[in-house]
Amino acid sequence: MIRIITKRSKKVGLLPGTLIHIGEEKVERTKVTIIDYDEAQMQEKEAKNIEECFSFKDTATVTWINIDGIHEVEVIEKIGTHFGIHPLLLEDIMNTEQRPKMEDFGAYIFIIVKMLHYSEHGGEVKVEQVSLILGSDFVISFQESEGDVFNFIRDRIRSNKGRIRRMKADYLAYALVDAIVDNYFVILEKLGERIEEVEEELVANPTRVTLQAIHTMKREMIFLRKSVWPLRELISGLGRGESSLIHESTGIYLRDVYDHTIQVIDTIETFRDMLSGMLEMYLSSISNAMNMVMKVLTIIATIFIPLTFIAGIYGMNFKYMPELEWHWGYFVVLCIMGAAAVSMVVYFRKKKWL
Amino acid sequence: MIRIITKRSKKVGLLPGTLIHIGEEKVERTKVTIIDYDEAQMQEKEAKNIEECFSFKDTATVTWINIDGIHEVEVIEKIGTHFGIHPLLLEDIMNTEQRPKMEDFGAYIFIIVKMLHYSEHGGEVKVEQVSLILGSDFVISFQESEGDVFNFIRDRIRSNKGRIRRMKADYLAYALVDAIVDNYFVILEKLGERIEEVEEELVANPTRVTLQAIHTMKREMIFLRKSVWPLRELISGLGRGESSLIHESTGIYLRDVYDHTIQVIDTIETFRDMLSGMLEMYLSSISNAMNMVMKVLTIIATIFIPLTFIAGIYGMNFKYMPELEWHWGYFVVLCIMGAAAVSMVVYFRKKKWL
Amino acid sequence: MIRIITKRSKKVGLLPGTLIHIGEEKVERTKVTIIDYDEAQMQEKEAKNIEECFSFKDTATVTWINIDGIHEVEVIEKIGTHFGIHPLLLEDIMNTEQRPKMEDFGAYIFIIVKMLHYSEHGGEVKVEQVSLILGSDFVISFQESEGDVFNFIRDRIRSNKGRIRRMKADYLAYALVDAIVDNYFVILEKLGERIEEVEEELVANPTRVTLQAIHTMKREMIFLRKSVWPLRELISGLGRGESSLIHESTGIYLRDVYDHTIQVIDTIETFRDMLSGMLEMYLSSISNAMNMVMKVLTIIATIFIPLTFIAGIYGMNFKYMPELEWHWGYFVVLCIMGAAAVSMVVYFRKKKWL
Amino acid sequence: MIRIITKRSKKVGLLPGTLIHIGEEKVERTKVTIIDYDEAQMQEKEAKNIEECFSFKDTATVTWINIDGIHEVEVIEKIGTHFGIHPLLLEDIMNTEQRPKMEDFGAYIFIIVKMLHYSEHGGEVKVEQVSLILGSDFVISFQESEGDVFNFIRDRIRSNKGRIRRMKADYLAYALVDAIVDNYFVILEKLGERIEEVEEELVANPTRVTLQAIHTMKREMIFLRKSVWPLRELISGLGRGESSLIHESTGIYLRDVYDHTIQVIDTIETFRDMLSGMLEMYLSSISNAMNMVMKVLTIIATIFIPLTFIAGIYGMNFKYMPELEWHWGYFVVLCIMGAAAVSMVVYFRKKKWL
Amino acid sequence: MIRIITKRSKKVGLLPGTLIHIGEEKVERTKVTIIDYDEAQMQEKEAKNIEECFSFKDTATVTWINIDGIHEVEVIEKIGTHFGIHPLLLEDIMNTEQRPKMEDFGAYIFIIVKMLHYSEHGGEVKVEQVSLILGSDFVISFQESEGDVFNFIRDRIRSNKGRIRRMKADYLAYALVDAIVDNYFVILEKLGERIEEVEEELVANPTRVTLQAIHTMKREMIFLRKSVWPLRELISGLGRGESSLIHESTGIYLRDVYDHTIQVIDTIETFRDMLSGMLEMYLSSISNAMNMVMKVLTIIATIFIPLTFIAGIYGMNFKYMPELEWHWGYFVVLCIMGAAAVSMVVYFRKKKWL
Repeated sequence: MIRIITKRSKKVGLLPGTLIHIGEEKVERTKVTIIDYDEAQMQEKEAKNIEECFSFKDTATVTWINIDGIHEVEVIEKIGTHFGIHPLLLEDIMNTEQRPKMEDFGAYIFIIVKMLHYSEHGGEVKVEQVSLILGSDFVISFQESEGDVFNFIRDRIRSNKGRIRRMKADYLAYALVDAIVDNYFVILEKLGERIEEVEEELVANPTRVTLQAIHTMKREMIFLRKSVWPLRELISGLGRGESSLIHESTGIYLRDVYDHTIQVIDTIETFRDMLSGMLEMYLSSISNAMNMVMKVLTIIATIFIPLTFIAGIYGMNFKYMPELEWHWGYFVVLCIMGAAAVSMVVYFRKKKWL
Repeated sequence: MIRIITKRSKKVGLLPGTLIHIGEEKVERTKVTIIDYDEAQMQEKEAKNIEECFSFKDTATVTWINIDGIHEVEVIEKIGTHFGIHPLLLEDIMNTEQRPKMEDFGAYIFIIVKMLHYSEHGGEVKVEQVSLILGSDFVISFQESEGDVFNFIRDRIRSNKGRIRRMKADYLAYALVDAIVDNYFVILEKLGERIEEVEEELVANPTRVTLQAIHTMKREMIFLRKSVWPLRELISGLGRGESSLIHESTGIYLRDVYDHTIQVIDTIETFRDMLSGMLEMYLSSISNAMNMVMKVLTIIATIFIPLTFIAGIYGMNFKYMPELEWHWGYFVVLCIMGAAAVSMVVYFRKKKWL
Repeated sequence: MIRIITKRSKKVGLLPGTLIHIGEEKVERTKVTIIDYDEAQMQEKEAKNIEECFSFKDTATVTWINIDGIHEVEVIEKIGTHFGIHPLLLEDIMNTEQRPKMEDFGAYIFIIVKMLHYSEHGGEVKVEQVSLILGSDFVISFQESEGDVFNFIRDRIRSNKGRIRRMKADYLAYALVDAIVDNYFVILEKLGERIEEVEEELVANPTRVTLQAIHTMKREMIFLRKSVWPLRELISGLGRGESSLIHESTGIYLRDVYDHTIQVIDTIETFRDMLSGMLEMYLSSISNAMNMVMKVLTIIATIFIPLTFIAGIYGMNFKYMPELEWHWGYFVVLCIMGAAAVSMVVYFRKKKWL
Repeated sequence: MIRIITKRSKKVGLLPGTLIHIGEEKVERTKVTIIDYDEAQMQEKEAKNIEECFSFKDTATVTWINIDGIHEVEVIEKIGTHFGIHPLLLEDIMNTEQRPKMEDFGAYIFIIVKMLHYSEHGGEVKVEQVSLILGSDFVISFQESEGDVFNFIRDRIRSNKGRIRRMKADYLAYALVDAIVDNYFVILEKLGERIEEVEEELVANPTRVTLQAIHTMKREMIFLRKSVWPLRELISGLGRGESSLIHESTGIYLRDVYDHTIQVIDTIETFRDMLSGMLEMYLSSISNAMNMVMKVLTIIATIFIPLTFIAGIYGMNFKYMPELEWHWGYFVVLCIMGAAAVSMVVYFRKKKWL
Repeated sequence: MIRIITKRSKKVGLLPGTLIHIGEEKVERTKVTIIDYDEAQMQEKEAKNIEECFSFKDTATVTWINIDGIHEVEVIEKIGTHFGIHPLLLEDIMNTEQRPKMEDFGAYIFIIVKMLHYSEHGGEVKVEQVSLILGSDFVISFQESEGDVFNFIRDRIRSNKGRIRRMKADYLAYALVDAIVDNYFVILEKLGERIEEVEEELVANPTRVTLQAIHTMKREMIFLRKSVWPLRELISGLGRGESSLIHESTGIYLRDVYDHTIQVIDTIETFRDMLSGMLEMYLSSISNAMNMVMKVLTIIATIFIPLTFIAGIYGMNFKYMPELEWHWGYFVVLCIMGAAAVSMVVYFRKKKWL
């Protein structure tokens, strides 16, 4: 399940700008990969140490520095110093509890988004924080661990497919955000399938497990919403065209991502509404089932209690009970009992209880 | 039932602007029909191939190119190239999961709206996406399949009824959107009738089927709302008069459609409120019914359990039980039982339980 | 009960501006009455045909043309042509399903409001649409049927009471809207009385009928709200002083009507809150009542079931049951039973169940 | 209890500006008191007739005219004429159903607020409307009845405590509004105490009376909210510094009252949330109690019904029942019954039902 | 538990600006500590009387005057007079019922925030009001009692760690607010842990205590929210850069605190949603448990009541009952009873009740 809150408290009392990693340590050693390209050529390499990427800072080509692992303070610090990034931002990069946000510092734009992974076994959604620094001709991306949704972007750069090699760093940043947002649809589809499964279960055979599943999904929606909602403002902020780092030609792509974000939010809200409806359904199923059980009890009890009473009467040991002496007494009483039972059943049918 | 989510995931990782059809393939072959008119004359024809319509692009007459079927990539691409439409828009046209939206590109305005069909058998509402491209003297409309709500517009153009032949392409676009919004009222009427039916059922004889029906309609409202709500902004955007493609004389018509949209939204909200009220009614009916059943059980049990106890006492086999010897003992006990039963019934009546 | 939705669908596919009456035909023949006045003199007459009122258009005096009945297309059309009213507005006038709205066309202001009637027998609220056209020195009012809340305005004009004869057409329009809003208070009072009645019933003796009544009123509130809510914007629009048709001196009166509208909306919201509270009360009464019934059952059953068991034991026919032979056995058992019953009652009292 | 709605309907059809008293006639005869002061001197007197106060209009000193009783039309009218107050405002003053509001007429500012009284016996909150007219050097206050929360202001003027004698009329108006808002805290404290009382009752021994108390308080909150909410806008309107009647030095005091108003609103919202929580608590207590009762019934019935059945078997009168002949048969059966009862109790304990 | 409302009423009727302490007297004697620093040097001392700190007012160094204890009127008054603070603010400082707020008076900025303490024994959250006065080169902080979350700031000043000694008074004020907001995360973590504990209890063994715990936490959330929500506006107000007291370089730090505040608010909202979900879970657990109990009762009763009836029949004492004479009668009846019981169990299993 998605964590509620992590041990952020270890930060309390530290200097603002003190770098400390908050989150699970997901990767053993920080891995730095560099992709450098323009329309004519591209090169790709895995850096042995962080200093290797510094030389790409001032080239005219677009450079994408991807860093997997954000727990090594000295690595983050070196990048910060070399690329002139404010210490508070480095702090944000290392703290995986950030909300998605975008901040424009003139020389670069700082973006935090949440990348989601759906683990097939267990059906859990995992959240990974991705921080982007968009400079005039470089993008630095920080991920918590290896493995991301950017492979097709790498392929596209390598094979010079599409317009990415012709565009600037802002298009690369857009492409990364777009890949993350597109991935939300995959997650939502999985969740949608699970919702449909649980819904069928709900109609066929609602059990306590169904209830638990609905509650788990409701909670997941709360967390998904928290991750996605701020994206709206973030992307509309990027598209507002106030930064000279964002070229006008990228505007239409940003509008497209914005549309997708709205769609994701819409779908989450719809899922929430559906889950609420399912909870209502579950509760009314339960009360319906209870109703049925009660009816059975009532019918059985209401038919047999009076009959048992009649039998009780003739089980009394009074000396003088004339009926007991009658030859057909027993059979008459049996008939009376039968008639009473039948008339009750008829009455219940009329009342629509049977 | 309206789908929750479709397989959008197959798009993930593709180039932005890659054309891929998302949705059900509803038509076998793309069908292109052209209506070209001005005040003086009109011609109408079904194009054999998509190239036929290109010649109409630069005529001074208004041209309406209607395309049924959006799954053939090459057709969409050719239109895009010839009419200079941005690849991202072509992508949107082919993806039936879009929200209604309007985008102004200067040379043309791009509109996506949702057309609803009510299928009589099954009572389902089906959604079809309609994309419109409004240029200076042409309108291109893309539909998922044949069959639409535009026939009376065609008739009006053919017979030169009303002002449509005297007006420009923007009026045609308005007429198409207006036809779709007007059609919502038809759908809402059908749904309103079903709500009234279910409501009568609810008063007369609420069953589990009624509950199911209320839930289905609640969900349909969620989806309808999702289709209609963005229209509000869309049409007010069109009417704001910022585009030179929208002539001032069309403004009042757009305000009229806007009013209709607000009315549709109002009605959907009202239906939602009503369905919530009906759900409450259902649940309180159920608990009322249960109450009644419980009362019957209680009354029967409360009357007969003590009587059975009395009978049990005189069924004991003690050697020395003086009452058993009394001549009228049996009748006295019967009378006591009768009196107990009557006084209980009287008590229940006083307590208003009977 | 207020209708949910009317047959608006017959309009679908017609030319915009096609005049067709949507609503019940409430009056047999359109009735046109004219009141023409200035400070010095006034005349009042019932027009035999619609043309009679045309001559009043350009007089300097204020003319109030009231039209009862909006189903005769030709009458509406003639007025439209003569007074230069846009066909779309004529359409709106004839369609009784409009939301309240205000539109400023420069030469005239178009207003739609909803007039409510409370029919004493049945306690229903009926809605009638009133459309007003405010020109520079005339007001045309369209009503669905005869009978309105304007009689005291007519009296005031006839008897030259108050300032109405000294003021212009805008004051007349204000007076009409004010009369309609003031009438809402009458309706709300009636509803308030019914709410209080139902509330007393709820405390004294809640039945299924009470529940039905609460639900009916909740629904009426939904519809009232729909009629009144848009008035807020409408009147603040009128008072914003952008139209040259509204004189400054009328501003304070419009602010007064605005205050009243807010008060009406406040009261409706308060009623809604109260009705929700009453529904909660009803449901908890029901569950309380059920609780009581269950307690009685439990107490009776819990006391008598063990006693019956004891009686059952001594009703067994075993050969060797020593207690049966004891002389006081019967009385001892009776005493034991009595003691068991008393101790249970004491226990229940301690647990506060009795 | 606070009234829902009063007979406002008697106003319908009257001229706007017609003075008619709406509300309960709380005072027999209108009482006019005048306090006139500047820094150097002050005088205070009870006016015998309304004309007495007219002479104070144009003095340079600050004059506070307080009028208890708003049902005498001629008194209100005379003041209106002399001080040049618009007839619509006089109407508002006499109609106790107004919302709190503030209107700036240049020469004077018109303020309506609600003064609350808490009557110890009965615990009811009573509402009294206070209207203020703030002119350049006078304040006229209209109250429904004698008795108010302003005595300490009078004391302060008499004894020249604080800055009030040095300040202008706007400070006096502020002081009056501040006194009313401060009084809300007293009311809220009383309500807070009642809420705590009811809460303790809820934990100790929830009864139907508790439920009734919660509902009554919920309704009181609805009405309190209606009285206080508009104050926010009212006071921020006064503090906006647009009127020349409000001196800059008063601004900080107004901001202070504004803070208090926000605090009152916050507290009301908190109380509403708490009452909702208490209602939930009550309902779950009730369902818990019901659960307990049901468990007792189930345990008793489940233990004794099978035992009674066994006893029933050996009470049958078959000729050939071998067990009956056994010497220890009776005791064996008693043991079996005991064992069955014990094992059931053990089972129930394991299931945590006992 | 957090108090609902304190005795604010003792203020009613006092002069605005009258200093009176509202709250618990938490410290015996007001304690004043002074820290004075610039980049080169720092001194720290505990003042014996309040006058000692006056000399620091006009030095060029940054001075932090911290006052523990706000109940001594003369101390507060002296500070007010010397530092030129408006009497209304002094009033606010002494009244612990203030909402968090920020006011800019040009020469100084006045800030009220709420500092939270979590007491381990009892698990209560305690609120302490902290008021800050930020002047050009001093910060005065008022606390209700000794003990705060600022120790690490003092350490940082003493040891010249970080940038605090190089920055101005505005950075000190930021650091104080930041410490308080950071502390919220500690509180939220504790609450998050308690929520998780209660949640586990809810799944394992929900009892009335669990319900009580959920309600207590819900109420704590209401109060936390009330303390934190206004911070949002407060900090964004500080960061807006309108005051000359806030240097541009502090802006980015304020944006950082702002982000944290939003995160705190987000977390509180998430906790509220979770607690609501837990309440729903609890209620459905209870109704589930009830269901189970009812089923057991129904099964037992439904199996044994008919069997007991059969036994009752053959316990009747009729003279002529042929079955009683049959040799195998008893065993046949036993078999019939067994068969009836088995078939009922089978039926229940089929219906999924067992």
